[in-house]
Amino acid sequence: MEALSIGKIAVLYAISTKSEAEEICQKASEMGYRLYKGSVGSMDSAKIFAAVETAAKKEGLINPIYREEHSIYHSILEAYTAICRGREGLGNVLRSAGLAFSIVRGPRISNDKNDGEWIAIVLFGNMGAPIKGYEHEVIGLGINPV
Amino acid sequence: MEALSIGKIAVLYAISTKSEAEEICQKASEMGYRLYKGSVGSMDSAKIFAAVETAAKKEGLINPIYREEHSIYHSILEAYTAICRGREGLGNVLRSAGLAFSIVRGPRISNDKNDGEWIAIVLFGNMGAPIKGYEHEVIGLGINPV
Amino acid sequence: MEALSIGKIAVLYAISTKSEAEEICQKASEMGYRLYKGSVGSMDSAKIFAAVETAAKKEGLINPIYREEHSIYHSILEAYTAICRGREGLGNVLRSAGLAFSIVRGPRISNDKNDGEWIAIVLFGNMGAPIKGYEHEVIGLGINPV
Amino acid sequence: MEALSIGKIAVLYAISTKSEAEEICQKASEMGYRLYKGSVGSMDSAKIFAAVETAAKKEGLINPIYREEHSIYHSILEAYTAICRGREGLGNVLRSAGLAFSIVRGPRISNDKNDGEWIAIVLFGNMGAPIKGYEHEVIGLGINPV
Amino acid sequence: MEALSIGKIAVLYAISTKSEAEEICQKASEMGYRLYKGSVGSMDSAKIFAAVETAAKKEGLINPIYREEHSIYHSILEAYTAICRGREGLGNVLRSAGLAFSIVRGPRISNDKNDGEWIAIVLFGNMGAPIKGYEHEVIGLGINPV
Amino acid sequence: MEALSIGKIAVLYAISTKSEAEEICQKASEMGYRLYKGSVGSMDSAKIFAAVETAAKKEGLINPIYREEHSIYHSILEAYTAICRGREGLGNVLRSAGLAFSIVRGPRISNDKNDGEWIAIVLFGNMGAPIKGYEHEVIGLGINPV
Repeated sequence: MEALSIGKIAVLYAISTKSEAEEICQKASEMGYRLYKGSVGSMDSAKIFAAVETAAKKEGLINPIYREEHSIYHSILEAYTAICRGREGLGNVLRSAGLAFSIVRGPRISNDKNDGEWIAIVLFGNMGAPIKGYEHEVIGLGINPV
Repeated sequence: MEALSIGKIAVLYAISTKSEAEEICQKASEMGYRLYKGSVGSMDSAKIFAAVETAAKKEGLINPIYREEHSIYHSILEAYTAICRGREGLGNVLRSAGLAFSIVRGPRISNDKNDGEWIAIVLFGNMGAPIKGYEHEVIGLGINPV
Repeated sequence: MEALSIGKIAVLYAISTKSEAEEICQKASEMGYRLYKGSVGSMDSAKIFAAVETAAKKEGLINPIYREEHSIYHSILEAYTAICRGREGLGNVLRSAGLAFSIVRGPRISNDKNDGEWIAIVLFGNMGAPIKGYEHEVIGLGINPV
Repeated sequence: MEALSIGKIAVLYAISTKSEAEEICQKASEMGYRLYKGSVGSMDSAKIFAAVETAAKKEGLINPIYREEHSIYHSILEAYTAICRGREGLGNVLRSAGLAFSIVRGPRISNDKNDGEWIAIVLFGNMGAPIKGYEHEVIGLGINPV
Repeated sequence: MEALSIGKIAVLYAISTKSEAEEICQKASEMGYRLYKGSVGSMDSAKIFAAVETAAKKEGLINPIYREEHSIYHSILEAYTAICRGREGLGNVLRSAGLAFSIVRGPRISNDKNDGEWIAIVLFGNMGAPIKGYEHEVIGLGINPV
Repeated sequence: MEALSIGKIAVLYAISTKSEAEEICQKASEMGYRLYKGSVGSMDSAKIFAAVETAAKKEGLINPIYREEHSIYHSILEAYTAICRGREGLGNVLRSAGLAFSIVRGPRISNDKNDGEWIAIVLFGNMGAPIKGYEHEVIGLGINPV
């Protein structure tokens, strides 16, 4: 089986349709990754952070110690910064985001046994004016060792 | 055929392996998109801008007028900002990027006939220390009307 | 008649006194520009975005399609970023803005017939502590093809 | 007596324990500095600005004219930017800060008689998730002529 | 004579044609302002800082002490940040700027005698691709007490 | 012995005079911390990153695996962002930095045995115009689990 990398898995999982998701999940699980996919939409950026952190804890993707929470927080922060593309903010700059998110935990590269576990977060969806259909796609990826 | 969106096409094309790329390219072409995929690696961020702009012109993905060049420039700038995740710079903060890039031109959503043409740029690859293997994945997407 | 540029018109219009405004408006209109001038003051940055977008729609300066809304949004975002000078925010960093704004639509340079229409937004006024007189001037300009 | 600089005094004072604070305060006062130390904790960044500005006015560390308020405001803004390390915000990115702050007014270097008075602000404390103990230290320093 | 403000003078002076410049200069001088206008074009942002600082010193608009140099430096930095609109850089993001700049020293508002002297810097011109005509206007204003 | 925290140790060590440094080093070493102090001055920000990374490797403060290099890199990046206070860059915005730096590895809080090892980086010194004495103090702190 061809080697996969944690970021590509997280991207594919976040952008997948329902039927594609299962296949990705199974393939990545066999390679030793743990994955979760959820969704969140808001003009309040804090809700995006809360949704991803809560899912990570509830699904056991991070252990209840600060160094793991720190790792996932910074991964979300990086992905969030990326979807904002240089000017952070949602409601404060009158825009809204409807996002799918993926959380992936495992090796940086599937066949790398010497560099421990990493966390990848992807946010993918649409950002735009608070008017139906006035939006385009955004993606963000944050990766940190855990 | 299921509707596709320009951002998802650009993401899939940028992260695709060689064999996957052909399939994406064909499917998107049938839906009215024009696509290009290239690669660039550097510690000098200007080279990333130059590589994508040059490819877009050479492949005829933008016409030689400023408003189209402006559109692709801002799409690259947004994708570049996203891969930097909040702190722009490569060599000046002692890091390097090895990237695949995709350029996609067409409707925002494949079956949308009323909102004209858009450009999507994806940068995908690895960023890290200038030491072999000391790097992890990054992705950035910029979309603008053209 | 000497050629004028869209940015200079937008700047002059935004900083003009009432009597100067009429002259600018007439001269620019003759050159094919459409203009609007309004005002907005707030510690809530979203109100600035809403005031300018609403005016642009109500005055017919943009058509009701997303690509035009996108163009004006990004022009406001650029002007707003410029008045913040590197640290975005108003109330969250305990400062307030009282602004005049101008919206100008037309050619980038008055005698340029080959590069289509552009939108220029200028925000001009005072920013400072929420204490009367504790403020100084700021200006921001954003320009995008429409 | 060895020369001291305004920034080092402000840092030492902000990070000092209660017993150390008195010694620093006395030594710096003898060198012509005026100092104040307070504390503020919040997820709302505006409260940090308000706490420091209010203290500076109440303690007479700035005179009631705009140019002095401007100087302290920009010093707080710089210190605040520094504790945020590239991505401004507290509650909006789901994090909280518990901070001690110091305000120091006097010469840039204690024995420099030719460059007037300066203001230094230090913010020091912990930033983290709104969960007890899930936080680490941050420090920020802003200096401006007054 | 109607009161004028330092920012508006600096904006008008920077965007003025040669014949307008004289009138502005004379009117502002009578109100107690000192002014200078120059120009600089580069892909290297440091050259913009150097051109304005050098002019300010040579024309005697700042005295040779650090607190005045600090004031003009931060005014340039704010104006420069404003023309970059959220993503600092010129050559590193493959763009170039051709600018006129104005330096104005005097009261914040022409008839205000109680708040000392301030410095205003305006940068105005074109920014764009390093291709002739592929550029649009930008403006930035920085104001600090001196 | 009173508990100490990694950030305070790193700050005290970076701002210490030669005689103070020995005492801090000894006290922190007894509590299980490993420390290093060096210095670097430049208008080229990459040199700051290189100086701290090289010292960390040479002194054995990080092990030669990417996850540890990643941790120290992000700590430097955060400290560097903090000294820049919102506008990253040195030579490109015509300023220079002369810095002492400290690297500290150990528990987040000296008596905390359950949250593993962390890295703290402090940059402290002067930043200013490339003119002797035209500079003031800056400080930055970055902390990450290692």
